Amino acid sequence: MTKERLYLFDTTLRDGAQTSGIDFSVTEKVVIAELLDRLGVDYVEGGYPGANPTDTEFFSEKRTQKATFTAFGMTKRAGRSASNDPGLQQVLAASSDACCFVAKAWDYHVDVALGCTNEENLESIEDTVKSAVAAGKEAMIDCEHFFDGFKANPDYALACARTAYQAGARWVVLCDTNGGTLPDEVKAIVAKVREVVPGDHLGIHTHDDTGHAVANALAAVDAGVRQIQGTLNGIGERCGNANLITLIPTLMLKQPYADQLELSIAPAQLAEITQISNAFDEILNRSPNRHAPYVGASAFATKAGIHASAILKEPQTYEHVPPESVGNRRRVLVSDQAGKSNLLGELARLGITVEKSDPRLDRLLAEVKQKEADGYAYEAADASFELLARRTLGEVPRFFDVSSFRVMVERRFNAVGDLITISEAVVKVEIDGETRMSVAEGNGPVNALDMALRKDLGKYQTAIDGLELIDYKVRILNGGTGAVTRVLIESQDTRTHRRWFTIGVSSNIVDASFQALVDSINYTLLKANPA
Amino acid sequence: MTKERLYLFDTTLRDGAQTSGIDFSVTEKVVIAELLDRLGVDYVEGGYPGANPTDTEFFSEKRTQKATFTAFGMTKRAGRSASNDPGLQQVLAASSDACCFVAKAWDYHVDVALGCTNEENLESIEDTVKSAVAAGKEAMIDCEHFFDGFKANPDYALACARTAYQAGARWVVLCDTNGGTLPDEVKAIVAKVREVVPGDHLGIHTHDDTGHAVANALAAVDAGVRQIQGTLNGIGERCGNANLITLIPTLMLKQPYADQLELSIAPAQLAEITQISNAFDEILNRSPNRHAPYVGASAFATKAGIHASAILKEPQTYEHVPPESVGNRRRVLVSDQAGKSNLLGELARLGITVEKSDPRLDRLLAEVKQKEADGYAYEAADASFELLARRTLGEVPRFFDVSSFRVMVERRFNAVGDLITISEAVVKVEIDGETRMSVAEGNGPVNALDMALRKDLGKYQTAIDGLELIDYKVRILNGGTGAVTRVLIESQDTRTHRRWFTIGVSSNIVDASFQALVDSINYTLLKANPA
Repeated sequence: MTKERLYLFDTTLRDGAQTSGIDFSVTEKVVIAELLDRLGVDYVEGGYPGANPTDTEFFSEKRTQKATFTAFGMTKRAGRSASNDPGLQQVLAASSDACCFVAKAWDYHVDVALGCTNEENLESIEDTVKSAVAAGKEAMIDCEHFFDGFKANPDYALACARTAYQAGARWVVLCDTNGGTLPDEVKAIVAKVREVVPGDHLGIHTHDDTGHAVANALAAVDAGVRQIQGTLNGIGERCGNANLITLIPTLMLKQPYADQLELSIAPAQLAEITQISNAFDEILNRSPNRHAPYVGASAFATKAGIHASAILKEPQTYEHVPPESVGNRRRVLVSDQAGKSNLLGELARLGITVEKSDPRLDRLLAEVKQKEADGYAYEAADASFELLARRTLGEVPRFFDVSSFRVMVERRFNAVGDLITISEAVVKVEIDGETRMSVAEGNGPVNALDMALRKDLGKYQTAIDGLELIDYKVRILNGGTGAVTRVLIESQDTRTHRRWFTIGVSSNIVDASFQALVDSINYTLLKANPA
Repeated sequence: MTKERLYLFDTTLRDGAQTSGIDFSVTEKVVIAELLDRLGVDYVEGGYPGANPTDTEFFSEKRTQKATFTAFGMTKRAGRSASNDPGLQQVLAASSDACCFVAKAWDYHVDVALGCTNEENLESIEDTVKSAVAAGKEAMIDCEHFFDGFKANPDYALACARTAYQAGARWVVLCDTNGGTLPDEVKAIVAKVREVVPGDHLGIHTHDDTGHAVANALAAVDAGVRQIQGTLNGIGERCGNANLITLIPTLMLKQPYADQLELSIAPAQLAEITQISNAFDEILNRSPNRHAPYVGASAFATKAGIHASAILKEPQTYEHVPPESVGNRRRVLVSDQAGKSNLLGELARLGITVEKSDPRLDRLLAEVKQKEADGYAYEAADASFELLARRTLGEVPRFFDVSSFRVMVERRFNAVGDLITISEAVVKVEIDGETRMSVAEGNGPVNALDMALRKDLGKYQTAIDGLELIDYKVRILNGGTGAVTRVLIESQDTRTHRRWFTIGVSSNIVDASFQALVDSINYTLLKANPA
């Protein structure tokens, strides 16, 4: 069977940039365009040249190697010719291979937002497409509010789509701008549109306002559409756009798509998708969603004891796709239900080989269980678990000892009468029999302690140069007087971009934080100086 | 047209508890069960009595007022009778109205995981259902791996479903355990199942491994299923379960569901769903997802300049549902008007009446906006909001002033050579021009500070006798160097059982905690000595 070609259109840099809290610089846009080329999408929509200085500069040169570099714009204004519309001319003059113009497809919005007649809007669509083609560009039309428009006035919505196609648009894209359409409606409406535009000239643009952005995109593909618009990690206005990172594995690994469709992405590129998704979050400076389909850290993790041993036996009956196909990995979580086979699996993943009969394994299992009963949660703290395991196996040197610390927080009036709060920590560390004392101030007691701990570790100082605390979480277990505090710290090495979690538990929050901080330093040293 | 009844089955406390990093205490389970009753779901599955001490204690009494309180368990083991299976007996003995038993429906798993014959598994299903019915329970069967099992051996999967139904199960639930099934497959397979079990006895249980948990649940409803299993905010193993918070608004507000189906949830309860979703995240001590469908802070927000003014003109053409129907609100970045009426509503809720033209209202609005920009979240801290409001309106006396405090945490070896950590706080308080100094030790710096603060408040001492800190949550906003710490404290008055939340924000965790502690004391005094 010949496969039909399905095209992927990424709008992270245009519609994704509408996400509240996101504001890309030109440099970031350049890096993201490279990432998209690496992923292998067909189109990269870079922004709206002329709309703001960032986008104008971004379009001063072509920014993709392989993908069709696409500029976004609006169809020409009514009442003037295309050549007389400076906004349109700026879009056409940008260094792009293709132009994607948004056009109204709901007669209500033609009237209220554009203030022109339905006929004038159709003329705008036609003239805009023709002038883009004349300028040597691949032309496409985003039909805004297409589905709501179709429900209000099907003939007019169809007229917009047909006009764009007949004028020479390579793609006519049906947009669910408000995000409220459900999959069955998408299918039914696409079927109607195919009577005026062939499926291999139709695109779909969906939003996640009912949690159906991905399902709606696939419903449109089921109905014959052959271009999907979406964004990296589903960023976008309100609830986000269709998530290409979720869609691509489904299209490549699942039926009927895998057999029927051909994508521009090779299996080797698919195997990088987890890394690409994480790299994008890195650029956004946010923690990746652990529960993201396919690429989340928990996507192939299980906590259930009964399942755990069975999964190790026959993973394909518990996993809907092989984790390595998307560059992710299986995680069988250590938890209080953990058995020995669980533990062996986790150790193997960390590259630690132990015989099942090794008595150290029983000691480790007992220790994990005791610690988890005390409130530790190793499933959330990989690095602390690895330290515990390697320590029990005798593989972790005693890099340093903290013989004492003291933290002081004082709120008082300063010399000029302002109320200030200062935090100061003193730490006494022993390294190779030598005592080092450090003092530091910080934003708070934990920060002061962190600063003091890392101020002078002697011969280890360069090894912890890149260490950075990026997140800090506190949870009280069993509220009330018997309360125990659990602290989870996320650290990263700014040189390798490796991230890890460490944990501390104590009735005293500073003590719990101290444990997690010390684990994080030890983990850095262990990775820098493998035993 | 008569509407058909659709039942909502919540498994937050059972399947949701499989989420990595989630570990509910009995107290948390009780609070969540109350939340679910407030939302109005039909079934609350509370856990697996007998599997662990938490769940056993949770099922020592009925924990719901309205919802059918449901215990989870496994079908009886092969080779013994139901009355001889202690695990099953423990489930039946729990204080529940209903029991939901998981049964294998994939012959492969019957063989490999259970190690029994297909016939024995059918007998287990039959006996288990019958003994639950005989024990006076509403019985249901979760058919594990139903869709994958059906694809491997449709006859056997159907035999499992039919056996459960014929034995008297009120519900036979089709589980997409691995989460890899797509909507069209769900529809096709449900159609086959309906040949052996009527739709009003069928449930659907989906996971989000391809981003289709919600779409698959609706696809099953389209195919005639009349019970949906899901969780609050979609928590659950791997990528999570079907999100009831997303499904409920779609079912109640969108066609064809709104016209065809009847839910247990009233429109007034739907209007609380945003608050319930946020309250649940508060319990989990995590930030709500701003981009969540319907309930996210950004779900009805727009950044696009061109849209913004049009939205204010005719919101319904830009919003797929009215935000207030789900208790959310429109956020258009130009509107102060919305803020003011919002604020008036909040004040009215606290019993504070202010004229819309009162200039103090503008001052309060400006202050709330400033504070929220700084990181305060008054939505989660009623008591701090009330204090701020009444203070701006001049209704809160200055009960006491803390002129300074000092907190010290020290880890050192004690006289007998044990490593100990001690926390000590000194507080200087001014009341009616008189200075009082107190010192106290505590479990940690915040506890010490709390003890010292409450040690000697002179004439107010009896008023704060019943005050007790019951929960303490910390969140870091904007990770990295510009990090700000937000502390949320839950307090209660042991005499009145009233509970309230206060908040503090600072770059220093002790300072933030101090603010929340002082707010809590002031709130107690305000309630004891109304102005």
